Amino acid sequence: MSPERPRRSIATVCLSGTLEDKLAAASAAGFDGVEVFEPDLVAAPWSPAELAARCADLGLSIDLYQPFRDLDSTDPERAARNLRRLDRKLDVMAALGVDTVLVCSSVAPDAVDDADLLAEQLAAAAAHAAGRGARIAYEALAWGRHVSTWERSWDAVRRAGSPALGLCLDSFHVLSRGGDPAGFAEVPGEKLFFLQLADAPALRMDVLQWSRHHRLFPGQGAFDLPRFVECVLAAGYAGPLSLEVFNDVYRQADPARTAVDAVRSLQWLEEELALRCPQLGLPLPPAAPPLTGWSFTELAVDDVSGPQVGGVLAALGFAHTGRHRSKPVQLWEQGPHPASRARVLLNASADRSAAAGTASVAALGLESADPRRSAARAEAMSAPVLPRTRGAAEAELSAVAAPDGTEVFFTRTGPDGWPADFLPTGERPGPGAGITGIDHVGLTQPFDAFDEAGLFYRAVLGLEPQEVTELAAPFGLVRTRAVTGPDRAVRLALSVSALRRGGWAPGVPEPQYVALATDDLVATARALRAAGAPLLPVPANYADDLAARLDLPGDLLDAVREHGLMYEEDAHGGYLHLATDVLGDRVFLEVVQRLGGYDGYGTADAPVRMAAHRRRRQARTAGRG
Amino acid sequence: MSPERPRRSIATVCLSGTLEDKLAAASAAGFDGVEVFEPDLVAAPWSPAELAARCADLGLSIDLYQPFRDLDSTDPERAARNLRRLDRKLDVMAALGVDTVLVCSSVAPDAVDDADLLAEQLAAAAAHAAGRGARIAYEALAWGRHVSTWERSWDAVRRAGSPALGLCLDSFHVLSRGGDPAGFAEVPGEKLFFLQLADAPALRMDVLQWSRHHRLFPGQGAFDLPRFVECVLAAGYAGPLSLEVFNDVYRQADPARTAVDAVRSLQWLEEELALRCPQLGLPLPPAAPPLTGWSFTELAVDDVSGPQVGGVLAALGFAHTGRHRSKPVQLWEQGPHPASRARVLLNASADRSAAAGTASVAALGLESADPRRSAARAEAMSAPVLPRTRGAAEAELSAVAAPDGTEVFFTRTGPDGWPADFLPTGERPGPGAGITGIDHVGLTQPFDAFDEAGLFYRAVLGLEPQEVTELAAPFGLVRTRAVTGPDRAVRLALSVSALRRGGWAPGVPEPQYVALATDDLVATARALRAAGAPLLPVPANYADDLAARLDLPGDLLDAVREHGLMYEEDAHGGYLHLATDVLGDRVFLEVVQRLGGYDGYGTADAPVRMAAHRRRRQARTAGRG
Repeated sequence: MSPERPRRSIATVCLSGTLEDKLAAASAAGFDGVEVFEPDLVAAPWSPAELAARCADLGLSIDLYQPFRDLDSTDPERAARNLRRLDRKLDVMAALGVDTVLVCSSVAPDAVDDADLLAEQLAAAAAHAAGRGARIAYEALAWGRHVSTWERSWDAVRRAGSPALGLCLDSFHVLSRGGDPAGFAEVPGEKLFFLQLADAPALRMDVLQWSRHHRLFPGQGAFDLPRFVECVLAAGYAGPLSLEVFNDVYRQADPARTAVDAVRSLQWLEEELALRCPQLGLPLPPAAPPLTGWSFTELAVDDVSGPQVGGVLAALGFAHTGRHRSKPVQLWEQGPHPASRARVLLNASADRSAAAGTASVAALGLESADPRRSAARAEAMSAPVLPRTRGAAEAELSAVAAPDGTEVFFTRTGPDGWPADFLPTGERPGPGAGITGIDHVGLTQPFDAFDEAGLFYRAVLGLEPQEVTELAAPFGLVRTRAVTGPDRAVRLALSVSALRRGGWAPGVPEPQYVALATDDLVATARALRAAGAPLLPVPANYADDLAARLDLPGDLLDAVREHGLMYEEDAHGGYLHLATDVLGDRVFLEVVQRLGGYDGYGTADAPVRMAAHRRRRQARTAGRG
Repeated sequence: MSPERPRRSIATVCLSGTLEDKLAAASAAGFDGVEVFEPDLVAAPWSPAELAARCADLGLSIDLYQPFRDLDSTDPERAARNLRRLDRKLDVMAALGVDTVLVCSSVAPDAVDDADLLAEQLAAAAAHAAGRGARIAYEALAWGRHVSTWERSWDAVRRAGSPALGLCLDSFHVLSRGGDPAGFAEVPGEKLFFLQLADAPALRMDVLQWSRHHRLFPGQGAFDLPRFVECVLAAGYAGPLSLEVFNDVYRQADPARTAVDAVRSLQWLEEELALRCPQLGLPLPPAAPPLTGWSFTELAVDDVSGPQVGGVLAALGFAHTGRHRSKPVQLWEQGPHPASRARVLLNASADRSAAAGTASVAALGLESADPRRSAARAEAMSAPVLPRTRGAAEAELSAVAAPDGTEVFFTRTGPDGWPADFLPTGERPGPGAGITGIDHVGLTQPFDAFDEAGLFYRAVLGLEPQEVTELAAPFGLVRTRAVTGPDRAVRLALSVSALRRGGWAPGVPEPQYVALATDDLVATARALRAAGAPLLPVPANYADDLAARLDLPGDLLDAVREHGLMYEEDAHGGYLHLATDVLGDRVFLEVVQRLGGYDGYGTADAPVRMAAHRRRRQARTAGRG
């Protein structure tokens, strides 16, 4: 642990598995400490003392014991019984060697409303704790029966006036109710006993359900966590930054991955804090260099899919311009000028577990202002930096693995850069069909990597996650979120099946795709048809519906009908696009033209495309059968 | 179609897949008609006339075209444009041969609030429809901008006074807002153009999100659909009962299964209506005979798992009392009196795809007052009735397949019943360890069969679904719902992983279990330990926590600690229980004692049990490794 930054802690409830699994994951990801969630301890085979020893072995401190529920009561007998229950838990804490217990505001029917009586009961509990060398961090649950705001919890703590009683602030409980962290300034720092952090998407639903199922790690949701933490630190809090995230996806995902995702969320948050509050003197990771565009997209192919995809690239106007010096990798290019050129690599060297004949997006080449700094940044954000083997005359390439396994290369495309790895074939890139570059790449994420991926691209690459759009697709609900640079030079469309998708239907989940840019899709489409490119047919009903919905120019509608184009609009402009058949079972190509300031990814048209792809697959299967 | 019952229809949006998939599924399940959901048509390869022909081939009428959105507008130019859009859709409807279009209340910023202007615009649209021989069914969306109640939609229709304009009533839109269907009585029957039905769970969330993601088929949720439909029919509605269910699970599930589930929901609803409104003269299916108890639970085993499970049954006090006349099936019994006897069959004959050495719950034997009528009832509720092969001296057994594949036998246990199929081994059932019967069976449901299963047991067997409990389990969120007879003689605990569960962890999803009843678990546990039964160890922390939480008698706590029991309470009583190790990878046994009126299934303790099972599996794996 570096002394300059706050300690990083995580509640065991954030992670899937048994307590044994959780601690191993938290330690491996580099956390400094944990909050022990009581049900995890109750189900654990270790005595509290054995657990303490296990944590010590793993380099983890135990920062909090939690939660203690429904302490106060209007029924004196029950209040006394609750104190006896607290005493038993103080026994456990003593054996664990942890001195702070989280007491949440009561949700019980017998919860105390009277401010003085509540303070009195909290003070009594604090006296029990103090007698054991412990202290109570009191937290207002957003759905507490009488105490549901941090102000009300602070009022109780202030009235109680016990040195062993302080506050636990939880960003979810405060921000989900629209609370203002600026008010923390009135609380003396020594009364801020603990800080729990969670982000969340903006949802309109019961706050208890929102909290229990949909919390996220900082940087994944809609809350302003940097400002929240700034206010807590400004008030004098000196404890750990501790994550408490209840989330249905993380609850069942590999805890080793979740823990890395979680630690990355704190790395991101600490950087935001360091930039926001220079006076704190927090260490800064290397800044993310601007990503200025696409150098290439690499598709993994094999002996069967390679020639197929190559043939399609040729029909799309690409030229096979280079072959790699040491590996079976082909470079395909289109566009007369290097500044407006699309490049696709076909890599047949990958050691793939995929079935024969498949093709998939294997790597993204992104142009970085400083590739080495991009890699250093990635390492500082807990991204897996990939080892590179390099041939004699080959350029150094830094790369990291994204959560879905896609490799992300940081490149500089120039005479001394990665193109030097390719020997010319003699073919030269020409104007082809008018394709001028890569507009974006669409990556289908593993079911439980969607939120992780958004934070990965944000923290590691400096791309900004955009709004999530939700799509009622033919084979199940699909969520899509783009991550983009500020100038949109790099766009990725990440999509996920919200549940699993269409296990009954072959050919799903949805394939990945590479969207190629053109300035004139009608002309490009005409060229592709002439070249025999395998374009996906769009039903005539689609154009009829488009004509009914939008007052489009007649020639545009004619082109839509003639070439099987799709068209949709957002508030800023229009989007003309077409798709190819699925190539090698897992990937297809799009050609797209943005009109005006259209900033989307064609998601409204996606169901039409998905249904058409399924139909083509059924026809192919029937043809083979 | 039988003439006495209402026509059964389903909106294509209810089903997963392409329009081709949906129509095939609806037809195969026996629906009479469909609502064509416009986006399904837009993505379809057929022209409207081809679609009409396809539906005719499949025996499906097209009962509604839907939805037409945002018709009215405060902007006259946009209002005129919306009418032009309507004209195009009337073209499509003419080609489809459907005469009713659903117009939903507008959600647009330019929606009309003024009641007379709205009526005027609806009347103008109705005139366009009438000119094409069509009509408009106007529906209030629960989140409509100005029209969000059925009363407001009826006001607009009444004011418009057009014969070609009537109401579409949708149970979700009315009941989600707490609307009272009694008011439908004021609407003339000829103004009720269409009826859409959906159930839903009681959720506190944004009504739009609730509607789009969580609708259910009638009988699966919390709405009183029988009363709703009674009110609609009483007002004179004579059209189809049509399902419109937006549900994230069904959206990605096999449409052939969903369609059967959907038709069953109408079969259930029609029976409820027939019983509620005898004056309607609706046909009644055979009533579900009372299920008076368990005759047996059958476990599928093989050469490896069979002896293992048999050994455990012996240690649990069971005697191997019979062997089947013609199949490799063993009968194991415990309990001196036939009326309080637990029976388990071990069946090694099943043609199983399971890995060697596994065991699983294959069948449930339920005691029926009239097994043949039970089977006739099942058939009337679209349950798959299983073919039976019968030996010379063997009893007839009727059985159906539940959604998870478990076979459900309707039995009469007597000299002429199924026990006659077994030849005595010479062993006699004795008091054993005090086990007196089967308390319940716990069945882990496939991810997308949970709601289907609840309706299956309700409609087919006459069991009542109980409250859903949600559990934050170690490997992901688990929902459990019991289905029970009115006297609790038969209980099943159905559970499901809300997402998938713990793909990273071996040994999940959770195994099934058979819960055996005892009147004295402490004595039974003592006997089991003495016999060397493989009881699951419960951590000492569990008993410590129990002691802190509840004021239990000291001798009970001692027994909990000594025998590794678990104990939980509900509002009615307590539940003492223990579990065995998992046998054959997929099933374990519980022994349980209900104290007082406890009516639950030990779900609060389940995380402790799951963590302990995982630990045992890890130890076994390590032992083998």
